[in-house]
Amino acid sequence: MTSDGETEARYRRYIDALNGRRLSELEEFVHDELTYNGRPITRHDFERRLLNEIAAVPDLYFNVQLLLATPDLIASRINFRCTPTGELFGLQPNGRTISFSENIFYELRDGRFSALWSVIDEAAIRAQLTA
Amino acid sequence: MTSDGETEARYRRYIDALNGRRLSELEEFVHDELTYNGRPITRHDFERRLLNEIAAVPDLYFNVQLLLATPDLIASRINFRCTPTGELFGLQPNGRTISFSENIFYELRDGRFSALWSVIDEAAIRAQLTA
Repeated sequence: MTSDGETEARYRRYIDALNGRRLSELEEFVHDELTYNGRPITRHDFERRLLNEIAAVPDLYFNVQLLLATPDLIASRINFRCTPTGELFGLQPNGRTISFSENIFYELRDGRFSALWSVIDEAAIRAQLTA
Repeated sequence: MTSDGETEARYRRYIDALNGRRLSELEEFVHDELTYNGRPITRHDFERRLLNEIAAVPDLYFNVQLLLATPDLIASRINFRCTPTGELFGLQPNGRTISFSENIFYELRDGRFSALWSVIDEAAIRAQLTA
């Protein structure tokens, strides 16, 4: 049994939309209401969060290292290598280029994200921005 | 396409071994040499790390919330609710019971782990142990 190709392809279109800054396409991939690590949010909240991150990290680029996909659940490890210019997770930029990873699960309902379960390596970010 | 039942069952036996503190069974699940977030380690290193964590957190219990498995790759979200009594990730215990999650991928070769890619929510741990 292998990862689901169709769901994978769709997920990669989502990542391409993020990297291409086409957040207007989020509706195609994300429900109006969802949960993020168990807390209810709206797609609008989610978009605003992404916009804030992109504002703080203009060269933010989502690089998928590992991917498993079924029609109901996706797991992805995303690597970032970027240079924050604004505050990120409460930390001030120091001009350095930093590397960190996010391991994230997406629960799907009718093909769109209904719940995200993310862990971002904030310890790595902290170590690099406070070094 | 769905998650692979046989690999899932085997993974749950691994988790049961951790929760049952049967680390002598690690050899069944983990190669002699592997990588942890890209760094080469031995199974002995891995076992020692687990022993240190269990010493610092005697009630450490691995509670699998989400699981995707193929014969080559497993993704798991593990929730912890525990009371550290020793230093954990450089943080001193404060008597509190804390909750945090780990999202982790396991690459498999011949059914055993050859590479682990883990992100632990250290920011959550820090927030709860320094509150």
